[in-house]
Amino acid sequence: MTKIQKLLVANRGEIALRIMRTAREMGIRTVAIYSEADRQSLHVRYADEAVCVGPAPSSESYLRADVIIEACQKLGVDAIHPGYGFLSENAGFASAVRRAGLIFVGPSPESIEVMGSKLAAKAAVAAYHIPMVPGTPEAITDREAAKKTAAQIGYPILIKASAGGGGKGMRIVEREEDFDEGMERAVSEATSAFGDGSVFIEKYVTSPRHVEIQVLGDQHGNIIHLFERECSIQRRHQKVVEEAPSSVLTPEIRAEMGRCAVEVARACGYYGAGTVEFIVDDQLNFYFLEMNTRLQVEHPVTEQITGIDLVKQMIYIAEGKPLDIKQEDLKINGHAIEIRVYAEDPANNFLPDVGTLETYVRPQGNGIRVDDGFEQGMSIPIYYDPMIAKLVTTGATREEAIEKMIRAIDEYRITGVQTTLPFCRFVMEHHAFRSGQFDTHFVNHYFTPDQLKPENNPEESQLAGVLAAWLFENRPPTAQDKTVVAEGSQSRWKERRFR
Amino acid sequence: MTKIQKLLVANRGEIALRIMRTAREMGIRTVAIYSEADRQSLHVRYADEAVCVGPAPSSESYLRADVIIEACQKLGVDAIHPGYGFLSENAGFASAVRRAGLIFVGPSPESIEVMGSKLAAKAAVAAYHIPMVPGTPEAITDREAAKKTAAQIGYPILIKASAGGGGKGMRIVEREEDFDEGMERAVSEATSAFGDGSVFIEKYVTSPRHVEIQVLGDQHGNIIHLFERECSIQRRHQKVVEEAPSSVLTPEIRAEMGRCAVEVARACGYYGAGTVEFIVDDQLNFYFLEMNTRLQVEHPVTEQITGIDLVKQMIYIAEGKPLDIKQEDLKINGHAIEIRVYAEDPANNFLPDVGTLETYVRPQGNGIRVDDGFEQGMSIPIYYDPMIAKLVTTGATREEAIEKMIRAIDEYRITGVQTTLPFCRFVMEHHAFRSGQFDTHFVNHYFTPDQLKPENNPEESQLAGVLAAWLFENRPPTAQDKTVVAEGSQSRWKERRFR
Repeated sequence: MTKIQKLLVANRGEIALRIMRTAREMGIRTVAIYSEADRQSLHVRYADEAVCVGPAPSSESYLRADVIIEACQKLGVDAIHPGYGFLSENAGFASAVRRAGLIFVGPSPESIEVMGSKLAAKAAVAAYHIPMVPGTPEAITDREAAKKTAAQIGYPILIKASAGGGGKGMRIVEREEDFDEGMERAVSEATSAFGDGSVFIEKYVTSPRHVEIQVLGDQHGNIIHLFERECSIQRRHQKVVEEAPSSVLTPEIRAEMGRCAVEVARACGYYGAGTVEFIVDDQLNFYFLEMNTRLQVEHPVTEQITGIDLVKQMIYIAEGKPLDIKQEDLKINGHAIEIRVYAEDPANNFLPDVGTLETYVRPQGNGIRVDDGFEQGMSIPIYYDPMIAKLVTTGATREEAIEKMIRAIDEYRITGVQTTLPFCRFVMEHHAFRSGQFDTHFVNHYFTPDQLKPENNPEESQLAGVLAAWLFENRPPTAQDKTVVAEGSQSRWKERRFR
Repeated sequence: MTKIQKLLVANRGEIALRIMRTAREMGIRTVAIYSEADRQSLHVRYADEAVCVGPAPSSESYLRADVIIEACQKLGVDAIHPGYGFLSENAGFASAVRRAGLIFVGPSPESIEVMGSKLAAKAAVAAYHIPMVPGTPEAITDREAAKKTAAQIGYPILIKASAGGGGKGMRIVEREEDFDEGMERAVSEATSAFGDGSVFIEKYVTSPRHVEIQVLGDQHGNIIHLFERECSIQRRHQKVVEEAPSSVLTPEIRAEMGRCAVEVARACGYYGAGTVEFIVDDQLNFYFLEMNTRLQVEHPVTEQITGIDLVKQMIYIAEGKPLDIKQEDLKINGHAIEIRVYAEDPANNFLPDVGTLETYVRPQGNGIRVDDGFEQGMSIPIYYDPMIAKLVTTGATREEAIEKMIRAIDEYRITGVQTTLPFCRFVMEHHAFRSGQFDTHFVNHYFTPDQLKPENNPEESQLAGVLAAWLFENRPPTAQDKTVVAEGSQSRWKERRFR
């Protein structure tokens, strides 16, 4: 067992900060890396030491494994945490880190390799009786044979890039006559996006929910699961609202999915924190999708309901410490929801809207957690994912967590860019979300940009005049203001109307 | 059962904000009151409506029961939450609120009345077999008889004002020959501070800990307890660090103290949130001290370990709803610590150091909660308690909560005033606190202002040069800075040295 003394976080923004905070709590010195575009970032200021690793494009900085490993050697770093994205699921990087005599805070290169390919992953878990969506067991080469399989499975089917993710290289085919065209497009997208044209086909699950199980394994063969996260609210195939626990799983299904997730991890000799993703249909049948061999963006909701710091556990595991948490001691306490606050315009198909955070005031108080990497006055670089923050609320019940989220969204003051906050508020208030009856098609089914317009919300519309008066005068309330409309509750309207 | 529609919070600062946040989550409209000194306060901006109730001195504004009740009637308010301090334990106010046809979010005037007098409180619980510190059962009038009782109890003894609190009107008498003088001073202090010179005497417990039990009772006779808070770290007889659970109670003693607290509440027909305070000696004997018939400053640590929103429960209870929490369902999850961030100079006997918050950046992240009423640029009024914020950390274990607290203190950036942050950091790192072996004399025993000087911390002293260079240049780190010292970790030193 080694005690990590100095940790380099090979990432940026909120996740770099989040990891460094835990490292600092553990008495570990921290090293930040940054691109030239991130000189002023909070993660750079927060770290004990910081190294510039190159120009803005990720390929010239955050993806430069060689530069990062060299920095570790120069600064006497003994471990690297990759965060998510960038090099976090790059088996070659994990190997290089190991060869350089450093600790990789994550799984073995072999686990990353196996789980990095959807087909290899399915092959690896085949012996473990894990339910899987009916489909081809390997990459498709013979189009006619594939078409035959598709007919056996029954339409609609899905054609997916073997190396894909985030919806890239994925096509739904509704009828046999569309198969050839769908196949052609999927292969060509996969080739251009991943340099790997191999695809497979599977049954397209209608009304699917995305539910994933958090696992933790140590280097001594102990593996536990930390229950599920429900991530069905997505836009452009990317998660935007996540929660734990799921509002639909029964304790029995939860236990069964947990057991399967642990077996998936066992199948690839997994250690570290990992996430086993499942698709759940409207009958609550669940099917293994893939395993993410890293910390997930949405890990905080699991931390909130279990009280376990996942980054701390990852570091302990990387040090070789045996897990000191037993499956039977774990319990779900309350309910947590995370929304991703992106600099995007929900009224314009969620297109990125980067710029400067002219106003940036976070919500506070009981049950609120904000993980971010910005302060007021900072700019959101165009080079990276435009996520500003993750806003997490925790309540005794799901309803309480939703109420806290609405309150927190209303309290968040962001001007200078459009954000996903109004969209997330729309989700929180929507009957389908409130009732728990929704699937990954939520946005397509229910959301049109019109719904964010103030005129569709008479009560708030009516307050706009009062607000405008107050804002344009730009003064604090006085004794003459018999009735002062709160600033917080209307902040999102103000941003839209008066910026 | 009434549903409260509009709540006036008869308080200011962090507690007004904290209450309004929960009200908003419950869909209740909020009304703030403010004095002329608090025009720009956050609680005023946060509320749906706000009313100025008079000039700065509390007696002319926050204590003006008549003005407050009139405002309620004008604005169609149906309930008042008094917070803590000000009118919160004023039975006359509670009565007047009731007479005006409004709901008082708190106990009955009768409960406040009984528990407002230490002697009446002791008499009320006499039948319930609650352990009490040996002492006089009633106010002392005959000095010679009192002296005889003191001799029977055995010195050292304590002379306490019946109407007292916060250490006022309290004197320790070590030997019989000092009795007369101690008595004289206590009576005179009590008369000038409370307009009531009645005192009682009791055994002085050496090495005492202050441990209090949170109770919740509804208007249907159901009373539960929510475990204890340990509040032994005090300066000038006022709490500055609190935690839950206590590091010394056994499950048996916890259950027994909880049972006693519930009986104390039952003895005065209590409903609402209340706190039963005990003194615990070094043998873990506990004695009933008094009951606070309101929300405590340190209530967040209880919320953190139980997941229960106490303000929400208070509102439900005031509405007449029966408690839906059962004692047997309650469980302690993790460990929470609160520190009070005061605008005080710990190096100068904790004297208030009010002024403007030139820099004010809160810590963030996993396990951090900040309850405050300020933003950067605001001034701390001289008229009120100079508390800036309550910083609360929650971890899976006490050690983790302490580590998070140290990290959070280091991250807190406050300039413009001296604060209790460095003192609280000193506490977190002190072996007596870490080991859990401390009592209310912690500050007297261990703390001298010298201990906050950088030269007594060689590691940090050594970094000052690097910091100074960076600060005076006032620029973000560049690629040329091979090694950049983190801003956060050293912020308290920077404040002292460079402001």
